[in-house]
Amino acid sequence: MDRRSFLRTSALGGSAAAASTLAAPAYAQGNRTLTLVTTWGRGLAGVHDSAQYCADRITEMTDGQLTVDLKAAGELVGAFEVFDAVTAGQADMYHGVDYYFVNQHPAYQFFASLPFGMTAQELNNWYYHGDGMELHDELGQIFGLKSFLAGNTGPQSGGWFRSEINSPEDFNGLKFRMPGQGGEVLGKLGASVQNIPGGEVYQALSSGAIDGTEWIGPWADEKAGFQEITKIYYTAGFHEPGPGLSLALNREVWDSLSPAHQSAVQTTAAASNLWTLSMFMANNGAALQRLQSGGVQVREFSEEIWTAFGDAANEVFQQYMSDDIYKRTFDSYQASMRESAAWIQRSEGAFTAQRNRVIGV
Amino acid sequence: MDRRSFLRTSALGGSAAAASTLAAPAYAQGNRTLTLVTTWGRGLAGVHDSAQYCADRITEMTDGQLTVDLKAAGELVGAFEVFDAVTAGQADMYHGVDYYFVNQHPAYQFFASLPFGMTAQELNNWYYHGDGMELHDELGQIFGLKSFLAGNTGPQSGGWFRSEINSPEDFNGLKFRMPGQGGEVLGKLGASVQNIPGGEVYQALSSGAIDGTEWIGPWADEKAGFQEITKIYYTAGFHEPGPGLSLALNREVWDSLSPAHQSAVQTTAAASNLWTLSMFMANNGAALQRLQSGGVQVREFSEEIWTAFGDAANEVFQQYMSDDIYKRTFDSYQASMRESAAWIQRSEGAFTAQRNRVIGV
Repeated sequence: MDRRSFLRTSALGGSAAAASTLAAPAYAQGNRTLTLVTTWGRGLAGVHDSAQYCADRITEMTDGQLTVDLKAAGELVGAFEVFDAVTAGQADMYHGVDYYFVNQHPAYQFFASLPFGMTAQELNNWYYHGDGMELHDELGQIFGLKSFLAGNTGPQSGGWFRSEINSPEDFNGLKFRMPGQGGEVLGKLGASVQNIPGGEVYQALSSGAIDGTEWIGPWADEKAGFQEITKIYYTAGFHEPGPGLSLALNREVWDSLSPAHQSAVQTTAAASNLWTLSMFMANNGAALQRLQSGGVQVREFSEEIWTAFGDAANEVFQQYMSDDIYKRTFDSYQASMRESAAWIQRSEGAFTAQRNRVIGV
Repeated sequence: MDRRSFLRTSALGGSAAAASTLAAPAYAQGNRTLTLVTTWGRGLAGVHDSAQYCADRITEMTDGQLTVDLKAAGELVGAFEVFDAVTAGQADMYHGVDYYFVNQHPAYQFFASLPFGMTAQELNNWYYHGDGMELHDELGQIFGLKSFLAGNTGPQSGGWFRSEINSPEDFNGLKFRMPGQGGEVLGKLGASVQNIPGGEVYQALSSGAIDGTEWIGPWADEKAGFQEITKIYYTAGFHEPGPGLSLALNREVWDSLSPAHQSAVQTTAAASNLWTLSMFMANNGAALQRLQSGGVQVREFSEEIWTAFGDAANEVFQQYMSDDIYKRTFDSYQASMRESAAWIQRSEGAFTAQRNRVIGV
């Protein structure tokens, strides 16, 4: 993406927000249906569940005064069209992962996951008790959105490959599925990177349209069935150490909600954030054991490859630094991450190393 | 605690629950005030904030139909009396840490933090997507409570000491403040362990009534002012790797709430769980830097000491295994912890090791 296409998209966002003023529905004291579109195919493990949790809790907690009607990807609009649908007022809210919208603004990357960036807990530290939520809101104002973190998949696996990756050069010419700035990093290493919605990845890998893919982690990957196609699986990845999922409302819709209903939406998003992360983290261990029993071979990238990922990530970040919001968000994010990381290393890191040694994990 | 005193307390819990049936207030459609008592002195950093967050969100989200009135420790009942006050119907709900109530039932330890036990994320995996919440509920039924995790302090620091701890023998005769089964572990090493509410620890340490104390972590410890008394601080501890805080309602009160209001309470508790954990984790790093600038010396226990902690912890656990609920909860907890820990080590652990190496944390 170049700077001009970003400016074009911003202008579109502005006019879409203006259009939504006209589209905002009048409503009385009775029940109101809010349409929730998602970037997830219906039933997609974990991520669809997270959207459904949000829909159900908001409906339940408001006693149906806000009844949330979930439309999965393709049921009203396509996976990657939810952002524009909500800014335009065609739908009231979306549940998705914000790096799908880096073409709208590159700073959306931070509210999903940055390559070499924050773990889920580090992201939450910054979001709820640093500048994160405010910066997310600043970005939303450009596009007529009110966004909240509403889920996290935890650390994503490096992915599925048809053959081993033994040096950074092995990415050269590889057709690989990876969204957002993580994909741009692989591009720097010579990969041909594609962004494909979750519901379509199996077919792309199976047909040979791509040589490899990352998706989420053992539990969701097993349900997607990638182990039927290839057996080489890298568990740790550089690209999405703890991607947040977002619940974003059309801002006119948000402004029309009572304070009690706004609180219900915002509190639900925070609860869903933890519930969703815990779901992935609780299920990955057993899923990995099943995959290994079925013949999947677990691999780790070498230090040389990790260093190459890091160098390429820095190159990618620099491309966006001329954008003021990206630069301010990057600086705030990095400072918070370093502070969190240093403490976690000294506390939870030191504890788990000793505990795992003593009890034999 | 011996087995008999536990049985005595259980019987009391039963009659208290029966008494609360009589005390349950009739209520109409209008606003209803719920009294929330806490184990925290008013304003105690992080933990009081967590209770206040719960009170404010429930009030806000129900538009005041449930108006939560927070009474800090000592304002209605003392810190350690909140459990009995809620089972007896004297207050509607408490916010506290459940290892304060191991004399009511030793299995309450699991819903706070077990020595050598789960980190915050591991606890949440088990609680929301394993057996944890159900087992918490089984325990609550004995005492007429409906409990939810509603906060976490993250990994707690080993504590403040007047002189260095260089071998397990250095705990012999040491007067130390540590609650619950963590304290019992130090007792096995010969320490004279006391349980003192947070608001009273500074005075006890300052007067020499105790030789040392743990409290929470750098941020809360700095606010408590322990650095004014001694400068020797062990950052990683074995005793509370991720203590959950609980919001517990009198079960008759819970049963009298509408499904919408029950959902508001339960969703608030989950949101508070994440918000509170993130608050401690976001603030500890900077606080530790300030403490070190002020002359505090950071120490780590040796491997020999960690191994002694581990052996003593096993001895403590064995004392409670004759209790069916404790045993079942222990087995479920340990199995879930090992599965979570193995996955986290391979994913987040491997990632952060590489990231911290590459970016220099």
